[in-house]
Amino acid sequence: MRIGEFSKRSGVPVSTIKYYLREGLLPAGERTGPNQARYDDGHLRRLKLVRALVDVGGLSIAAVREVLGAVDGSEEPLHDVLGLAQRSITTAPAVERDEVAEQQAREFLAARGWMCSDDNPALRSIVAVLTTARELGHDHFLDQLSAYTEPCRDVARSDVEYVLRRSSVEDAVEGLVVGTVLGDRALAAMRRLAQMEMSASRAPREAAGE
Amino acid sequence: MRIGEFSKRSGVPVSTIKYYLREGLLPAGERTGPNQARYDDGHLRRLKLVRALVDVGGLSIAAVREVLGAVDGSEEPLHDVLGLAQRSITTAPAVERDEVAEQQAREFLAARGWMCSDDNPALRSIVAVLTTARELGHDHFLDQLSAYTEPCRDVARSDVEYVLRRSSVEDAVEGLVVGTVLGDRALAAMRRLAQMEMSASRAPREAAGE
Repeated sequence: MRIGEFSKRSGVPVSTIKYYLREGLLPAGERTGPNQARYDDGHLRRLKLVRALVDVGGLSIAAVREVLGAVDGSEEPLHDVLGLAQRSITTAPAVERDEVAEQQAREFLAARGWMCSDDNPALRSIVAVLTTARELGHDHFLDQLSAYTEPCRDVARSDVEYVLRRSSVEDAVEGLVVGTVLGDRALAAMRRLAQMEMSASRAPREAAGE
Repeated sequence: MRIGEFSKRSGVPVSTIKYYLREGLLPAGERTGPNQARYDDGHLRRLKLVRALVDVGGLSIAAVREVLGAVDGSEEPLHDVLGLAQRSITTAPAVERDEVAEQQAREFLAARGWMCSDDNPALRSIVAVLTTARELGHDHFLDQLSAYTEPCRDVARSDVEYVLRRSSVEDAVEGLVVGTVLGDRALAAMRRLAQMEMSASRAPREAAGE
């Protein structure tokens, strides 16, 4: 299909498609003339993935480029490619380091057998959370995180099953990216709905009805 | 303290503090002269909360204003105030409605006894996730969300306990806001660490070693 048709079928404006092409988020189309190129269903599928990462995942263009590099670079063992893809879809908030929080986070991870490098965005994220919690006077927030351990393992077990069910390495990595980005959104939403369920049965009597 | 000291103690630039004052995110200081005002520890605490919502939660200024309105408006029953606060910290991605996804999401919520209004951002979020999943050819993503139900309830149970342990309604609402915003970040990070744990033990043999 030509770029006009590509735009129509994807619902993405031509100018945005051209921007993604320039940024290397979409492979070039097949040249059919000096100013013309043809796009196929592979382009369409890739474009949808880009939009999901940007619109639902809130990823930056640089992060999307990195994720796609991982999706395409499936020469490494699956576990390594999955790790690479995962890092690129994880952002850590920019918060100044706090030594106590840093130490707490390391011990917290070690106690769970979760080993990762110093600059892993998941570790940096937990440090940022604990730093902020301490600044807000929530000194016991670490206990809260402990309570999240098993639920996170349950979620992760299901995530990994979902990924390994897919047939090729490329499919598995794409599945991880989609599942993680969409899953984060869904988990945050479901957590709130479940909070309301728990709060509806508890809050009125125990705290507000005083 | 004067605004210079307020800035120094909070680490937030004077220009940003003035911006928050203009936007109503911080209550005005006590006037001490034509161009001078005094700020207290209440201001400092509120400023830290604003920064956490912006930096860690990624909330917009408008959303922060709404959250703070809920934190301060503690005349209503606790359950209602919690609901209000929660809506304001929940953002749904802007994705076009898909009728099938809409129907799926409603049934999914109803099956769990999670009732909410049509415009609830948590419902809108799940519709957006299911719409995007379908577009990417992940037609069975709903099964994945089903697997998240009990983990989300476990997390929510712990969240509600954390909130109800706090002494005043204002404290409880602040606890919910902090716990939810920081908790979302922590959960996303812990989910990834747990995924690596599960993947390390499964992926190399089952899929990549072919």
